[in-house]
Amino acid sequence: MKARMFRSAVKVFFVLLLVVLSLPLQSSADERRWGTASLVVVIERQAGSVLVIDSSRHELLGRISGLGNLTHATVKFSPDARYAFVIGREGEVSKIDLLTLKLVKKVNAGKLSVGGVISQDGKYVALSNYVPGEVRILDADTLELVKTIPALYVDASGKDGKELSSRVVGLVDAPGNLLVFSLMDANSIWVVDAGKKEFPVIHKFTDVGKTPYDALISPDGRYYLAGFLGSNWMGLLDMWRLERVAPILADQGKGPEVPLWKIPHLKGWALTGRLAFLPALKREVALVYSTLDWTPLAPIPISGTALYTVARPDGRQVWVDIIGKNGDLVDVIDVDSMKVVKTLNPGPGATHPQFTPKGEAAYVSLMDGGKVVVYDTATFKVLKEFPADHPSGIFFANRAHKFGM
Amino acid sequence: MKARMFRSAVKVFFVLLLVVLSLPLQSSADERRWGTASLVVVIERQAGSVLVIDSSRHELLGRISGLGNLTHATVKFSPDARYAFVIGREGEVSKIDLLTLKLVKKVNAGKLSVGGVISQDGKYVALSNYVPGEVRILDADTLELVKTIPALYVDASGKDGKELSSRVVGLVDAPGNLLVFSLMDANSIWVVDAGKKEFPVIHKFTDVGKTPYDALISPDGRYYLAGFLGSNWMGLLDMWRLERVAPILADQGKGPEVPLWKIPHLKGWALTGRLAFLPALKREVALVYSTLDWTPLAPIPISGTALYTVARPDGRQVWVDIIGKNGDLVDVIDVDSMKVVKTLNPGPGATHPQFTPKGEAAYVSLMDGGKVVVYDTATFKVLKEFPADHPSGIFFANRAHKFGM
Repeated sequence: MKARMFRSAVKVFFVLLLVVLSLPLQSSADERRWGTASLVVVIERQAGSVLVIDSSRHELLGRISGLGNLTHATVKFSPDARYAFVIGREGEVSKIDLLTLKLVKKVNAGKLSVGGVISQDGKYVALSNYVPGEVRILDADTLELVKTIPALYVDASGKDGKELSSRVVGLVDAPGNLLVFSLMDANSIWVVDAGKKEFPVIHKFTDVGKTPYDALISPDGRYYLAGFLGSNWMGLLDMWRLERVAPILADQGKGPEVPLWKIPHLKGWALTGRLAFLPALKREVALVYSTLDWTPLAPIPISGTALYTVARPDGRQVWVDIIGKNGDLVDVIDVDSMKVVKTLNPGPGATHPQFTPKGEAAYVSLMDGGKVVVYDTATFKVLKEFPADHPSGIFFANRAHKFGM
Repeated sequence: MKARMFRSAVKVFFVLLLVVLSLPLQSSADERRWGTASLVVVIERQAGSVLVIDSSRHELLGRISGLGNLTHATVKFSPDARYAFVIGREGEVSKIDLLTLKLVKKVNAGKLSVGGVISQDGKYVALSNYVPGEVRILDADTLELVKTIPALYVDASGKDGKELSSRVVGLVDAPGNLLVFSLMDANSIWVVDAGKKEFPVIHKFTDVGKTPYDALISPDGRYYLAGFLGSNWMGLLDMWRLERVAPILADQGKGPEVPLWKIPHLKGWALTGRLAFLPALKREVALVYSTLDWTPLAPIPISGTALYTVARPDGRQVWVDIIGKNGDLVDVIDVDSMKVVKTLNPGPGATHPQFTPKGEAAYVSLMDGGKVVVYDTATFKVLKEFPADHPSGIFFANRAHKFGM
């Protein structure tokens, strides 16, 4: 009898213990809450993982691993910035809950993918695939396949009018819940209405330029701008009119002999309202254009060859990521004087400068230096460093509210 | 003995019951999580409460009450959009946790206040007070007083050089962690460095125009634009140079006889990059200016007198809130054709149109219609209605990342 009572008492004790132990866990979960609007996701490309950082306090929240091949990975955000979608080179899409830091679901949505985008209404994740050549559209809630749009074209030089498949690049979302993308092998730009159930291709612009390799959309979503490997111009599509792809910037493209790794990523261009800052192929300058009429302005000498030119959100500074010679450096251009006013030396493989939403701080990855460095953009002081495993791309959650991002 | 065992068993049962009951509560708490980047806070002015809505799913999350006098209240957000700061007319500042929907703290920071702003670095809440005439700066974490900047000036016409106190208006944050505001009774604009411990006034521009009553800062944070009750122009301060307040828009101000309630709030202006859309005093048009050189363009006829002109984030549409005659209506201007392409009739007291971050939907308050109506901005269909008690101002959390908002 005493033994029984003892067992009962022991049971009560353990149950109470469980309850008590669960309390501090719950309260620490409370303390670890955060808003999602200014989170940062940093790609650790070799490890196949990402870091999640709270940029409002420059505080590391955690790491999510097992995301596959993250070479050239990109990150997209749901409109509420609760979820990040990490899109890998081999078409892996990993949906991460930024409140719990858990991998919600991972699917494979292609063999070789070069990017993706969230539709304006937030309902879909769309992938631009090289292989198979297509746009693949997933439900953003479930990651289930909703639609495949094969990038098929008839080769003009072909004798038998056989349909061929094109690699897809430069996929962006646009106002009106549209998706816009370029067909690399078909010299075409297509526009899809993602607000309609069948995702119809509502416009096909052909012969826009030879071998489009990348594109961007202006921050206001009005202009789609495509780069061509084999044509001596860029293509500009006015999304308000959807009439034609007009050639601009005729001194840009340098012909098909340009090695692929040197092609400036158009998403690395900086558009600051009235000015565009561009990396220049093989030249140690930042190119500058007026966005009012795309006339060239005086190029700005920099410390080497630029990979990315990134504007601070207020447009007063442009940070330039140097590659090759002086690859450890980042130049800061003052847009008022149009000169480099500061050269930072973050360290080995410094790349991908990105700004907090209001631009008071900048994050830079050291791919070969094992950390992410945070700068105060007014004083250029280092505010913080985060250890990281070969960090590359840095993605702020306010991209959720930007077209094409 | 049996009774004891029974009591022990009962204890175990109840403890287990507690544990079991707590499980669904925890999991329902999980289900009720949300990202904060696209939340909306709607002021219920008479009830002294706010609604919190998740605009990514158009879903009501809850109501927070007991916030004081919310006539002309404004809402500011922390950079991570975890917290909303509701600032009332009588200087009440209520800090709301948007994850738990709880009032964290409420303080009184003035007797009569006309607005506030979060500093660029997110550390401070600053209030522009009429009474006492000052800028009051609170710690954003604790809402404790950090600094008071009295708006004192020497009346030029005064014989004895006595210091007087001015009402403060048009307070905004600006790049470089600056605060800019206007002294209504001193015809001055002051600039404060909020990055320095003492919050020094680093610039005082005097004789800028008679009786500044409101101001705005351009979305890129470069231009501070002040309106004057007693001068026939607007004042433009280039924040990159901080040299002078230049007169522009000489046909704007209509003299001191204009009744205060008809003054267009400058924060209701729409700046779409190259164009500015303005409400016109007593005229049934929207005024249009080029923001490149502030030259006037052709005004656009509308259904009545505008209170707010609000641009869709992509700049393709401007929604115009009509007051007085036809006060139930909202006009939609198509910026490509510069014409009203749709007149909506949301209902009694329709006001304060505001857009989701990417502009696919618009929220409109019916102050006298007891609801908030959500429109699809492409089809103009009503997507959803939320019952609300005399709703007025609508504040999207992506303001966290906009200067002066």
